[in-house]
Amino acid sequence: MTINLKSLQKPQLLLNKEICKANINRMILAMSDSDSIFRPHFKTHNSPLVGEWFREQGVRAITVSSFEMAFTFINAGWKDITIAFPFNLNWCKEINKISGDIKLNITIEDTYTATLAARDIKRPVGVMIKTDTGYGRTGIRATDYLTFENIIDIIDKSKTLQFIGFLAHAGHTYKAPDKASIKNIYYTSLEQLNALKAHIGRGLTSYGDTPSCSLIKPLSHFDEYRPGNFVFYDLMQLHLGACTESDIALILACPVASVHQKRNEIVVHGGAVHLSKEYLEIDGEKIYGKAVLLNKDGTIKADRPNGYVRSLSQEHGIINADNNFLKQIKPGDTIGILPVHACLTAQVMGYEYSELK
Amino acid sequence: MTINLKSLQKPQLLLNKEICKANINRMILAMSDSDSIFRPHFKTHNSPLVGEWFREQGVRAITVSSFEMAFTFINAGWKDITIAFPFNLNWCKEINKISGDIKLNITIEDTYTATLAARDIKRPVGVMIKTDTGYGRTGIRATDYLTFENIIDIIDKSKTLQFIGFLAHAGHTYKAPDKASIKNIYYTSLEQLNALKAHIGRGLTSYGDTPSCSLIKPLSHFDEYRPGNFVFYDLMQLHLGACTESDIALILACPVASVHQKRNEIVVHGGAVHLSKEYLEIDGEKIYGKAVLLNKDGTIKADRPNGYVRSLSQEHGIINADNNFLKQIKPGDTIGILPVHACLTAQVMGYEYSELK
Repeated sequence: MTINLKSLQKPQLLLNKEICKANINRMILAMSDSDSIFRPHFKTHNSPLVGEWFREQGVRAITVSSFEMAFTFINAGWKDITIAFPFNLNWCKEINKISGDIKLNITIEDTYTATLAARDIKRPVGVMIKTDTGYGRTGIRATDYLTFENIIDIIDKSKTLQFIGFLAHAGHTYKAPDKASIKNIYYTSLEQLNALKAHIGRGLTSYGDTPSCSLIKPLSHFDEYRPGNFVFYDLMQLHLGACTESDIALILACPVASVHQKRNEIVVHGGAVHLSKEYLEIDGEKIYGKAVLLNKDGTIKADRPNGYVRSLSQEHGIINADNNFLKQIKPGDTIGILPVHACLTAQVMGYEYSELK
Repeated sequence: MTINLKSLQKPQLLLNKEICKANINRMILAMSDSDSIFRPHFKTHNSPLVGEWFREQGVRAITVSSFEMAFTFINAGWKDITIAFPFNLNWCKEINKISGDIKLNITIEDTYTATLAARDIKRPVGVMIKTDTGYGRTGIRATDYLTFENIIDIIDKSKTLQFIGFLAHAGHTYKAPDKASIKNIYYTSLEQLNALKAHIGRGLTSYGDTPSCSLIKPLSHFDEYRPGNFVFYDLMQLHLGACTESDIALILACPVASVHQKRNEIVVHGGAVHLSKEYLEIDGEKIYGKAVLLNKDGTIKADRPNGYVRSLSQEHGIINADNNFLKQIKPGDTIGILPVHACLTAQVMGYEYSELK
């Protein structure tokens, strides 16, 4: 998609291909000396095009967060897919239709679902057991060995299901106060998954979250890594120390609607339906994005004056900006916004990217 | 679209047509004894189908929040449209292509944009001047008569632009602590717009927001009313006292992923990408939606046990539910979630509705 930043009629997502490919490469390098499997989570970009950039760098195994997304990437030629979302029994019929040369793993976290999946799934399917290492969202507590044994027993008796391993998402790293705490969550999760694996006597340990996978080098402790957000990064990751601002590959380009010099405000066309309502709270103030000035080619201007999105309604974003920022723009111009949470911004924008060369 | 609630593969939006039509009818009745124009905001539903339900009840004038949305409804046969978003000069070229029999109003709030619009717009276009009656988001302060005079002067000298009136959105009603405060914002806005109209000597007073338009009866004070959300209502409006729970026409149907009896939690497939991250904060606790049990036809079960969405990630919703709720469901079942902000839920779901008969 080509865009003319000087005459933007509506907000558009700019994707800096060079930064994005470098982000992919950096994560691959972090595990290049280990035997760990890299199975990146594709929910962030949900784009066959961006998927190709992973494939070019040798990636063959991927993670998705929904049954629908699995089909998107099966159609794009991917043959080794884990659906890292609790299995929905209503998917059985469709799963049975997927051709045999695609390796599909599902995620199960209770005996009821395991029993019915064993009954209704008619083709070979790998099973990851969702393991909770402290996040407390989904999964079986890593220390609840009995439940793991019961589920594995059901899987082992099935003709189609095959036990693969333990899948953990340490989402609590997003709430960690500093880098040391993020690393601590990583090593605590490792200890739990290794103890579980030792108790059961088999099974892959699979782990994923961008904050810890960005901070730990080399990545060689788990059998498998599934970070996702790192492909774009965003203000949340910057705030956590997982990336630098120059690693952020996704920018929402927004037409300026009005400039209120007296109150240091810029109103842009760029609201909750373009950015999502995700925010960061810093010193008691909410931030919905960081405003940046763009060069003609969509890259960020070097002088980087300050501007932050302070509130969002459906279509409007209100930016509080310093004078240096304000004096450089007028209604009808285009400015960029670095999103707080790239995964959600990409989704509300329909995963449509204008690629920067 | 027909759906089978018993075997839902992914979240779907259910739209109760009967409730929706009754909501439209109630708003029309509220202004039936007045000369006020009803120009509902279509950004909430953004659906030609729902638009037809308004047309059936005699509505001919509408409001939209973007240039794109104007085209959606021009294509659906609407001929009197106000774009209630600060005019973007990059729209001029396309606006010049719209056929002459469509009455289009744009919204302007600064002399710079007025000057360039007057130069570049080549077909008749009405102009509303965005007026700030206290919300502080966009618009000219209602008391800043000089700026209004300057903009109207530019419009009057133009061959194509025609001054129509003053457009106010009292979005601060959403933050009002009680019904009396909402009504107070309504009457304060009225006073300001009437004083402005008296000073200028002409111009329609146009006002819109669902909380006050739902609470004031009859609606006969402004020349024009532009509420939007009332077509669906939601938990936010319920919380503000603008509707009852039985007026909420939009429900997100979600497959149950897992049930954690011990911690009174249900995990559903239904996350930020299905509901949006909008929340209500009640007694210091965040609520992202209310869980309800559904009958086979998608209507809400009469016994209504309690369950609230307490956290959301991209695809997951975590519901805290009472025992009566928990005992009635298991993985693979479908439950409903009443959204906090129907406008955003409709948008993230792509404005695709499964209509309940």
